[in-house]
Amino acid sequence: MSDNIKYLLEEDKIPKTWYNISADLPKPLAPPLHPGTHKPVGPDDLAPLFPMALIGQEVSQEREIEIPGPVREIYKQWRPSPLFRARKLEKNLDTPAKIYYKYEGVSPTGSHKPNTAVAQAFYNKEEGTKKITTETGAGQWGSSLALACSIFKIELDVYMVRVSFDQKPYRKMIMQTYGAKCIASPSNETNTGKAILKKDPNNTGSLGIAISEAIEIAAQSETTKYSLGSVLNHVLMHQTVVGNESIIQMEMAGDYPDILIGCTGGGSNFAGLIFPFLGKKFREKKEVKVIACEPKSCPSLTKGKYAYDFGDTGNLTPLVKMHTLGSSFMPPATHSGGLRYHGMAPMVSHLKDIGAIEAKAFGQKECFEAGVKFANVEGIVPAPEATHAVKGAIDAALECKKNGKPKTILFNLCGHGHFDMQAYGDYFDNKLAEDDYNESAVNKALENLPKIA
Amino acid sequence: MSDNIKYLLEEDKIPKTWYNISADLPKPLAPPLHPGTHKPVGPDDLAPLFPMALIGQEVSQEREIEIPGPVREIYKQWRPSPLFRARKLEKNLDTPAKIYYKYEGVSPTGSHKPNTAVAQAFYNKEEGTKKITTETGAGQWGSSLALACSIFKIELDVYMVRVSFDQKPYRKMIMQTYGAKCIASPSNETNTGKAILKKDPNNTGSLGIAISEAIEIAAQSETTKYSLGSVLNHVLMHQTVVGNESIIQMEMAGDYPDILIGCTGGGSNFAGLIFPFLGKKFREKKEVKVIACEPKSCPSLTKGKYAYDFGDTGNLTPLVKMHTLGSSFMPPATHSGGLRYHGMAPMVSHLKDIGAIEAKAFGQKECFEAGVKFANVEGIVPAPEATHAVKGAIDAALECKKNGKPKTILFNLCGHGHFDMQAYGDYFDNKLAEDDYNESAVNKALENLPKIA
Repeated sequence: MSDNIKYLLEEDKIPKTWYNISADLPKPLAPPLHPGTHKPVGPDDLAPLFPMALIGQEVSQEREIEIPGPVREIYKQWRPSPLFRARKLEKNLDTPAKIYYKYEGVSPTGSHKPNTAVAQAFYNKEEGTKKITTETGAGQWGSSLALACSIFKIELDVYMVRVSFDQKPYRKMIMQTYGAKCIASPSNETNTGKAILKKDPNNTGSLGIAISEAIEIAAQSETTKYSLGSVLNHVLMHQTVVGNESIIQMEMAGDYPDILIGCTGGGSNFAGLIFPFLGKKFREKKEVKVIACEPKSCPSLTKGKYAYDFGDTGNLTPLVKMHTLGSSFMPPATHSGGLRYHGMAPMVSHLKDIGAIEAKAFGQKECFEAGVKFANVEGIVPAPEATHAVKGAIDAALECKKNGKPKTILFNLCGHGHFDMQAYGDYFDNKLAEDDYNESAVNKALENLPKIA
Repeated sequence: MSDNIKYLLEEDKIPKTWYNISADLPKPLAPPLHPGTHKPVGPDDLAPLFPMALIGQEVSQEREIEIPGPVREIYKQWRPSPLFRARKLEKNLDTPAKIYYKYEGVSPTGSHKPNTAVAQAFYNKEEGTKKITTETGAGQWGSSLALACSIFKIELDVYMVRVSFDQKPYRKMIMQTYGAKCIASPSNETNTGKAILKKDPNNTGSLGIAISEAIEIAAQSETTKYSLGSVLNHVLMHQTVVGNESIIQMEMAGDYPDILIGCTGGGSNFAGLIFPFLGKKFREKKEVKVIACEPKSCPSLTKGKYAYDFGDTGNLTPLVKMHTLGSSFMPPATHSGGLRYHGMAPMVSHLKDIGAIEAKAFGQKECFEAGVKFANVEGIVPAPEATHAVKGAIDAALECKKNGKPKTILFNLCGHGHFDMQAYGDYFDNKLAEDDYNESAVNKALENLPKIA
């Protein structure tokens, strides 16, 4: 059998719908609450920040939501993305397991993020939005929304977590190339940013802070909206184009996954691959084990509390029930910038709470070790975030070797590492920061959780 | 009509052969000469540096050379690469021309270079090579050969032009990730390097110097061979997989190019797209205008002399007849590191000499301007080298607008710019070095051309 097995779909097989897992949940999701009244938020509360089409998707119970024609057209530039059988990795590990991976690094910005960026920019354009504000961690999201806003001719301001802004200058430059403005966060452009810098001029930022800054600006103008790259239901749903394609590609391979693996920061690439398979589990009882892989230094799913919390540091967002390390927790400056978020998508958190998924936390050194192995065996250098999924898949395959069980593993290789080679350089130079779990900092942050009756 | 038109081939349409333009030349290529005797070099002269299979390909007159099965298998990871119709760019330019581009940025290292890297590593492995040395300019070649050597488990030392080593640290890191050693050139590891550093400790290097260093090391051991990423006939031939695919894809589009465009440094991506079409021109009289786009700062085709010269600065290589700026010419430190070579592939030079191709030189600022436009209109950020082809294609399309002639243009987008965003950053910050043609430096270098009877 060939060592290079790629399952490609014809362009007309790009899914026509996104999958909305809300329709199939065994138990409904806890609603987001207004931070003042603690009552469920309604569409009107969200209207200053999002176009109505996205607010509708956020609360929709329809199982299939049609992908608009223009969005599908843009998807065609890089979709359907390939699904590979990792035969060389299987041989290298000498495992009886079959390992498959879906590869989202083929998009113009090298990650899965354009799947929702293009959709969000489209709906904003439809409703007259002139400018969008957003936050970005490692920059995958910011550069992808910059691409989308360039296509739809919408102005874009991106608040980028300062540590990543400094570590990953190429990301700022690609946003600039696509015509967006990229601002290191915390910044002096917002009240939230100014207040933080006053207390701590060297603050290296967090997604929570950057979200506060972006929301603050968006709330000031009717034609400026806010856009989020993960966490929210509609964002996760746009990513299900990944899983919907994978279901067809696994059929082409004549296989079905026993184990599904993705890395989790806010949860979007994980949800994108996994929700459509979980839907089949809920509807058709097709069993599948799901493992979310997160960094030890920011372990919301494995160490966080499942509770109502703010999505941002400035406490401007609605309260959402999620696994959280506390909205004031500052994750250390590891290289997996896309996974440095204090919370987890409410939908992913809910699935963990009802036992539909498991979670594991890995240190960044063991993840880069897995990433280097993958690059040398399979040829693709994974993004630092994606190395967590690689590590999870390798561990699962080695478990199969130990047990002699030939399971079928599918993971999401959500992006390439071409923008993030400094991280690999630091790994080789033994310069990677320690990334142990800071329990006392988390406990302190959790003390400030809002009290909900 | 859709704005996103992608012509994809099935995997089994990956060409089974490379195209060897030597078979169809109206006039044969001048032979390489031994630097001492000035007699044509034979296979024995090259045997210390290259495996016999590649020496055979270098002088072959067979039109089609079979791509070995294992090489084709590896190609499958990213080939066939897509060919796009640039409808949005056409609209943006308001041109009656049709613009197509072949996109080689989908390879694991983001450029066309793995097409020959994999082939060269394969033949070396077959003949027992334990270690390969090579040079690299911007790093596309070094990282691609590192990938190939990782696949075939061959040790690799890459001499990287110092200015690019410093400008593009990510390239060094990806080579390291693939297990290769990357050394800034000129280095203290070779006599050539030491001699240059003694005279000029701050020498920023050139491809010519890096080639000398790599050859010097390769010549010292029977199981160490040398590998070149461009210039030689066999290297250019391996790239024709690009053009062979494009011919089928243009048939799918129901079109045939009137104008073919590629950027030229050593000539390999240009040759890869263009030679198969030129073959059809020579055999079937299918007319096509061909434009090679090179940097104004290193204009071998437009300003160089067509003469026998050394391929390297240390004067260790055979003498080859090519358009040259003189082997001692030091191109300025522009961002298009892959185009900074004093000479041009003998085959490309020959085609220019017999009038089969034209050449144009562009400044780096106008190229980045074209690159930014392309990114914003078509969504893909081109590598700095590839912006020269983009600029050439835009100029040709605007010419069509002026003349009202609806020509069909096809160009090679040979790589993405994800590793090279600093160049775009410098463009936006107005920090790009001047890149005028240094005529006196070239004249001085040309004084030292070897005298051939």
